[in-house]
Amino acid sequence: MVLMRKLSTVLVVGVGLIGTSIALALRSRGVTVALSDVDEDAVRLARELGAGQPWQGEPADLGVLAVPPDLIAEVLADLQKRGAARAYTDVASVKAEPTAAAARLGCDMTTFVPGHPLAGRERSGPTAARVDLFLGRPWALCPGPETSVESVRLARELISLCGGQEIDVGAREHDDAVALVSHAPHVVAAAVAAALERADGHEPDHLRERPVALELAGQGLRDVTRIAGGDVRLWRAILAGNALPVADEVAGIARDLTRAATALRIGQLDVITDLLRRGISGRARIPGKHGGPARDYAVLQVVLQDRPGELGRLFNASGLAEVNIEDVRLEHSPGLPVAVAEISVRPRDAERLTEALQFHGWYVSELWPGHCDPVVTEVGAG
Amino acid sequence: MVLMRKLSTVLVVGVGLIGTSIALALRSRGVTVALSDVDEDAVRLARELGAGQPWQGEPADLGVLAVPPDLIAEVLADLQKRGAARAYTDVASVKAEPTAAAARLGCDMTTFVPGHPLAGRERSGPTAARVDLFLGRPWALCPGPETSVESVRLARELISLCGGQEIDVGAREHDDAVALVSHAPHVVAAAVAAALERADGHEPDHLRERPVALELAGQGLRDVTRIAGGDVRLWRAILAGNALPVADEVAGIARDLTRAATALRIGQLDVITDLLRRGISGRARIPGKHGGPARDYAVLQVVLQDRPGELGRLFNASGLAEVNIEDVRLEHSPGLPVAVAEISVRPRDAERLTEALQFHGWYVSELWPGHCDPVVTEVGAG
Repeated sequence: MVLMRKLSTVLVVGVGLIGTSIALALRSRGVTVALSDVDEDAVRLARELGAGQPWQGEPADLGVLAVPPDLIAEVLADLQKRGAARAYTDVASVKAEPTAAAARLGCDMTTFVPGHPLAGRERSGPTAARVDLFLGRPWALCPGPETSVESVRLARELISLCGGQEIDVGAREHDDAVALVSHAPHVVAAAVAAALERADGHEPDHLRERPVALELAGQGLRDVTRIAGGDVRLWRAILAGNALPVADEVAGIARDLTRAATALRIGQLDVITDLLRRGISGRARIPGKHGGPARDYAVLQVVLQDRPGELGRLFNASGLAEVNIEDVRLEHSPGLPVAVAEISVRPRDAERLTEALQFHGWYVSELWPGHCDPVVTEVGAG
Repeated sequence: MVLMRKLSTVLVVGVGLIGTSIALALRSRGVTVALSDVDEDAVRLARELGAGQPWQGEPADLGVLAVPPDLIAEVLADLQKRGAARAYTDVASVKAEPTAAAARLGCDMTTFVPGHPLAGRERSGPTAARVDLFLGRPWALCPGPETSVESVRLARELISLCGGQEIDVGAREHDDAVALVSHAPHVVAAAVAAALERADGHEPDHLRERPVALELAGQGLRDVTRIAGGDVRLWRAILAGNALPVADEVAGIARDLTRAATALRIGQLDVITDLLRRGISGRARIPGKHGGPARDYAVLQVVLQDRPGELGRLFNASGLAEVNIEDVRLEHSPGLPVAVAEISVRPRDAERLTEALQFHGWYVSELWPGHCDPVVTEVGAG
């Protein structure tokens, strides 16, 4: 079977992280990309990055709306009026309300395929874009009853060209799902971070550079609150666009927390144990980083001197041992003349690489998976 | 001034992550370390790692109690009865209650200096130990009114030998602080993770490998819930040992969440905006990874072929350009023949390294710090 290539020109409206990443992925596959954004600097930057050329109004096969959820209906109506593309999709993390808004505005719903790529980064804007941002990542597609088969085909080809994995799901089911796995956690992270505003310590502030509580902050707090750094304008629109499902999830979590607070006050520790246990089993349901089961690598820790060429020597030795390094993390403590490289390799390669590196004089220790249980002792030992 | 070295032998009781890391740090500074644990395998393992020798009952200068908070009083009483050391400190993340329990048990409080190193890892046990775990990290010391000057001196020398940064704080203030920055966030993370147990999707489970909600899970959810993977036995003891301060913080967060849920239901979006804004400003109060201001590196992204020796060639080229690599992260998408190495270098080295790598044929792009704002668009684009 010969698959006809239908997608040769794409219009990307909104050249933030997601829009520009889509454009880069399409460019790498030879698709002609036109770029549009209310911010002309962003368009210029995206063009510099090789994401495409500024849109001059020429019609495209597919229009990708990479704008906040509350702008989708309006932008779609405008583009359809101008005959900008044969079909349209969007990337917003809310699906039901923007789709309903588009219908209310009188948009042609046969050419609109609501979509949502599940990918992102901590950085935003075109310079954060990555050609491989969507590779292996889920990409929800929520066509309605009116959506034409041809429009869905074009949206599917977009996903395929970007390397995403299509997940067909109803708009309402999608919104309930992301309320649970994304939107409610965002609100919770904001509430934990907001509590830090109250931190003052018991001593007057001028005696310390910062309240003692924040001096005692560790990586756990940083992780829990990381997503709370998200753009307020964008997240207000996301939460407003998915208000009831998010409210239900947030209220459910609040109830669990209120119960836990009461249990702590009256010493009912089995309630706490139950919550911690449910947390562990809920957490175990989250799939691995790329959607599939987590691949098991052996991890070698190698102590390195902090000097130019040290990593080169290390990886040369690995290359000579014909071992492919699957992942590497450098843990570096400022001020120390050593660093620890954590090197992930296929388990069958671990022994050979260890011997090769030890032969060259490195101190190597293997993280033993059998001894790596999921215990976190983030702040202090207990 | 010549500082007399007072600490030449240390007994470490409990060779988990923290105890073994302390032992390794002390060994690297020439201190004699004796190891004790109810788990003899753990002692053997810690000895293999070079952390010291099994304790035979000989008296030490300082005894370090690296056991859960609810065991401290009992272990301290036992060690004091045996005359195990001249002074004692612990590493638990709760300070007031274990100290009070020790006093109630009739322990000699002049020789006990409650302590808490603010360091940890996602892994536990002796094999996860790191000689540099405490380097530059805060280490709370909470001596009471009865604690002798000599005992405090020994505890201080321990912190100094481990490279930690001493923070003197009252036990009660310490506990209030960690309730805010560690214990309450742990309970909240557990509640978010526990909510995932409810995820079923609208379709019968047999139609999908997992509920659609979990297929849509992204890195944000993983981060928010990471600490919820912590050991139930340990965390139950920590939360029980700091029950009232944790209850207050958890209840405060629950109130914020209940308000947010109500605001979402009735469309009061300014309440949501206010919470998101407070979240951002609270988050901005968290200090950088090592306590100091974050050092500014330039970050280069280099596209690599996934084959043996590729990293070696890359780092050789860096070494030839006389550029020291401060940090490296490999972003690798399974199944793709390319990976992206994110290389941190001093800003003055960025251009030279970029040119050198491009000369050798690599595709290099620099992450522009000026365009990296803290926006997170974790799941989807919005």
